[in-house]
Amino acid sequence: MKPSHIEHIGIAVRNLEDAIRFYEKIFDLKCYNIEEVAEQKVRTAFFRVGQTKIELLESTDPEGPVSKFIEKKGEGVHHIAFAVKKIAEQLKHAEKHGITLIDSSPRKGAEGLDIAFLHPKSTSGVLIEICEDKNI
Amino acid sequence: MKPSHIEHIGIAVRNLEDAIRFYEKIFDLKCYNIEEVAEQKVRTAFFRVGQTKIELLESTDPEGPVSKFIEKKGEGVHHIAFAVKKIAEQLKHAEKHGITLIDSSPRKGAEGLDIAFLHPKSTSGVLIEICEDKNI
Repeated sequence: MKPSHIEHIGIAVRNLEDAIRFYEKIFDLKCYNIEEVAEQKVRTAFFRVGQTKIELLESTDPEGPVSKFIEKKGEGVHHIAFAVKKIAEQLKHAEKHGITLIDSSPRKGAEGLDIAFLHPKSTSGVLIEICEDKNI
Repeated sequence: MKPSHIEHIGIAVRNLEDAIRFYEKIFDLKCYNIEEVAEQKVRTAFFRVGQTKIELLESTDPEGPVSKFIEKKGEGVHHIAFAVKKIAEQLKHAEKHGITLIDSSPRKGAEGLDIAFLHPKSTSGVLIEICEDKNI
């Protein structure tokens, strides 16, 4: 079950407005949506680059996951999301191969997509999201 | 000057073979090239996911940049590469807007592409590569 493309790259930033300005000014990209995801304690800003979105993440809570990530590792890429068909089957496949799951079943993420996370300890250190792709 | 797509995502890993196995087994991707880039002191392995390549990076030298990255931050995403036209002009544009450049002019990277890096202190913490896209 191959992913069709990289759905998005999530980037943890300290200041959403500064980071938006960078992508708009330097790469002439347009931020098309800013959205608060209360459950993840983040404000997110989205850009499109070909098939992939850049998703900037600013924490809304010092105890939130993005705040803790920045504390530990500094600003930078927080996760990569692969677009897949049949996300529930993909999760079962990963679990069968000994991958530790953060989400054992899909849940709703930003932009209303079904998503789930794999644990970085099983993935050579990358927090990997899989994301149902409705368009394939 | 918009990038056309994310050319690749560079991921720093401790063990190239383990990481290759993960992407092959879990996502059914095929590693199509393994290449040593002596100048960067890395062995690299490539996969295609839609428009984007996953480039795994294993250090060949404890003093190399990928080794130092892992020491400081752990395994994980090391850089993102944006495909652009006219890379030299893009570099001048970034410099004019106050971005600190690692490479003030393009040089050869993996797979023979012209590349240059922007410094993470100017980019909200992400090591960004720009990469001449011959196909656009």
